[in-house]
Amino acid sequence: MNDDVPAWIRATYLVSAAADEIDAVARGLATEQSVEMPLDAITDRRVLDEVAGRVEAVAERAPGCYAVTLSLAAETVGNETAQLLNMLFGNCSLHDAVRLVEVELPQALLASFSGPRLGIDGLRQLCGAGDRPLTCTALKPQGLGAAALAALCERFALAGLDFVKDDHGLADQVAAPFAERVAACQAAVERANERTGGSTRYVPSLVGSPRTLTRQARLARDLGVRAVLVAPSLIGLGAFRELVDEDLDGMAVLAHPAYAGAARVDPPLLLGGLFRLLGADATIFPNVGGRFSYSAERCGAIAEQARRPWAHLAPCLPVPAGGMTPDRAGEMIGAYGNDVMLLIGGALLAAGDRLDHEARRFVTAVADAGA
Amino acid sequence: MNDDVPAWIRATYLVSAAADEIDAVARGLATEQSVEMPLDAITDRRVLDEVAGRVEAVAERAPGCYAVTLSLAAETVGNETAQLLNMLFGNCSLHDAVRLVEVELPQALLASFSGPRLGIDGLRQLCGAGDRPLTCTALKPQGLGAAALAALCERFALAGLDFVKDDHGLADQVAAPFAERVAACQAAVERANERTGGSTRYVPSLVGSPRTLTRQARLARDLGVRAVLVAPSLIGLGAFRELVDEDLDGMAVLAHPAYAGAARVDPPLLLGGLFRLLGADATIFPNVGGRFSYSAERCGAIAEQARRPWAHLAPCLPVPAGGMTPDRAGEMIGAYGNDVMLLIGGALLAAGDRLDHEARRFVTAVADAGA
Repeated sequence: MNDDVPAWIRATYLVSAAADEIDAVARGLATEQSVEMPLDAITDRRVLDEVAGRVEAVAERAPGCYAVTLSLAAETVGNETAQLLNMLFGNCSLHDAVRLVEVELPQALLASFSGPRLGIDGLRQLCGAGDRPLTCTALKPQGLGAAALAALCERFALAGLDFVKDDHGLADQVAAPFAERVAACQAAVERANERTGGSTRYVPSLVGSPRTLTRQARLARDLGVRAVLVAPSLIGLGAFRELVDEDLDGMAVLAHPAYAGAARVDPPLLLGGLFRLLGADATIFPNVGGRFSYSAERCGAIAEQARRPWAHLAPCLPVPAGGMTPDRAGEMIGAYGNDVMLLIGGALLAAGDRLDHEARRFVTAVADAGA
Repeated sequence: MNDDVPAWIRATYLVSAAADEIDAVARGLATEQSVEMPLDAITDRRVLDEVAGRVEAVAERAPGCYAVTLSLAAETVGNETAQLLNMLFGNCSLHDAVRLVEVELPQALLASFSGPRLGIDGLRQLCGAGDRPLTCTALKPQGLGAAALAALCERFALAGLDFVKDDHGLADQVAAPFAERVAACQAAVERANERTGGSTRYVPSLVGSPRTLTRQARLARDLGVRAVLVAPSLIGLGAFRELVDEDLDGMAVLAHPAYAGAARVDPPLLLGGLFRLLGADATIFPNVGGRFSYSAERCGAIAEQARRPWAHLAPCLPVPAGGMTPDRAGEMIGAYGNDVMLLIGGALLAAGDRLDHEARRFVTAVADAGA
C-alpha cells in the first residue's frame, strides 16, 4: 500500500459560515469526514500523511456561503457504496449548514463502478425508437386491482408509448400483488405489441428489503420483463448498486427520486451523478413548472450530470416528470434535446374516455418535435 | 379486504406555506403521498374511499408554518420498510418546504415490527451493569492496523468501559480488514475480561451492501461478538430491518446517525422513533454542546422517542455523543437519567499516555454520578 501513490477523492461542500470562521470549519470538516479525532492526538505518521482528510480549497460563493473542497483518502472507502457515502456525507450530513455538491473519484475507484449497462443507446434499442425522444407513462392509482392496471397498460401500449411504468407507489399490496400485477401487465403489453408490431416495454416498480428486491427482480425477469423502476434512495444506495450488479443483468434500470430529497445532497449530484455511477440507465426528476419547485437551472444540471462524458460510464437518460402534459412536449424537447424520455402520467389518466386519444397525441407530439 | 375496517397511518408534516394556500397544499400532499393523480380522474369508489390519502388536520404552528396531519391507507404499505418510507416521505421529500415530523402506525402494522430485541434491559445484562448509566468509547483513527486497534481496545477494556465500538468510519479497508480487525479486537476484549472479571463488549461496525452486511454479521457472530454498530440511513432502512431480523439474532444493535442527514425527517422521529421501530437497541446522536449544533430540546426529544412506552416495543437506549468529555458525565446523567449510555471517543484518545487514566476516570465518573 505504501508503495503506491495514495489516491484521493475530491468532495466539495457548500457551507454556511462567518468569514472569520470558515477556515476552521473547513479543517473541522476534513477531520470529521476522515479520522474523526484531533490531528494532534494522532501519532501514526502514515495516518496523518495518507488517511487524514485535507482542505484543498475554500472559495466564497456568496456572502457567508463557501465552497469547501476536501481530499479524502480513497483507501478509506474500499469498494463499498455505503462506505463511500459514509466518507462523503456520513457525519457531516448532521450539520444543517453543510450540503454535498460535487464529487470527483480517482481513476482506480471510478473504474470499479460499471455505471449504466444499457445507457441511452440501450434504452433506445429496447423500444426500437431510433433517435427521437422517448415516451413514458405511469399506471395509477394504487388501489386498483391487477386486471384494471393491466387493462390500462394495454391501452397505453396500443397508443404506442415506449415505456409504461408502475406508479412508484405500487409495491406488493393486497389490491394488486406484485406477482399477479407484473404477470398481467407484461402479458398485456405483449398482446398489444403483437397487434401493433411495436416494442412497448412494461416497467414494474421494485421496492422492499434487499431479499424482497432480489425475489421481485427474478420474478420479473422470468416473466420477460426487460426494464424496472427502482428508487435508489428508498432502498439504500448500496442495496441499489448490488441489485443492479447481481440481479438485473440485461435489464434497463429507471431510477425514481422518491426519498432522495431527504438528505442534503445536491440534486444534480445525487439524481444525475451518483444514481448514474451506481447503474441507473435513466433518471426521473421533477421538471421545472410541474408539481415540484425545481428550477430550470437545477433540472438542466441534473441532465448535464446524467449525460456528460464521464470516464467509461455510459450516459444516463434524463426523464423530466412530475405534472407534465402533452402540450409541453415541444418545449421540453427544446430544452433537453432528443436524448430525453418524457414521462406523463396523471395528465393522460385524467383524460378519462379520451385516454387513448391523449396517449396517441402525446406519442405523436414527441415524434414530431423530435424529428 | 373490504370487510375489514381500513387501517390508516397518521403522518404529520411541517409545511411552509401562505395562509391562503395551505389548505390546497395540504390536499395536494395527501394526493402526492397516496394515489398521486387528480382525485376527479379516479372512478373506482373503493380507491377514493379506502386508498386515497386524507387531510385530517391543519394547525398553524408559527406564521407561515403549518402542521399538516394526513391519513394514509395502511394497505398501501404492506409489510415493507422501504415502502413505508415511500408512502411517508417518498415524493414529498422533494419539496423543500415539507418536513416529516410525526408518524402514528395503526395497531396491525405496528405489530409487524419487532423493534429492539434486547432493548435497555438487554444491553445492561450484556455488560453486567446493573442500573447505572453505561459507558462507551470508540476505536480510532481509521488507517491504523488491526493490531494497533486491538491494543487500544484492550486498554479500554482493562479500564472497565462497557462497550468499545469501532469508529463508524472503519469498514473493510486494506489498513485493517474487517475479518482481521474483528478477530483481533474481540480476542483483546476477551483477554481483558478474563483479567478483570468484567464484561466489556467489543462492537464492530458493519457497513456495506446487503450481502456484505450478512457476511460481516455472520463472521462477527462466529467470533463471539454480541453487539454491532450499524448506520441505518447509510445502508438503507429496509436493509437495516432485514439485517436485524435475519442476521443479528441475539446481538445488540447500536444505531449510528451517519447520513441520517436529519435535515427533513425530524431527528427525534428518525433517530429516536424509526430506528427503534426497526430494531435499534441503542441510538447514537450528536449531543448538545459538542461538535454538532443539536439543541438540548432536540436531544431531549430524541431520548423521549427512544424510551417512551410504545406498544410492544422495548425501549431503545439513548447514546448522546459527538465531542463529549468525562467532565460532562455528571451533567449528561443529570439530563438523561440512568437509562443512558455515554459515548466518549476522541477525548480519551487525545489523552495520549494518559489514555488509561482518562478511561478509568470516565468509568468512575459515570459510576459515581449514576449511583
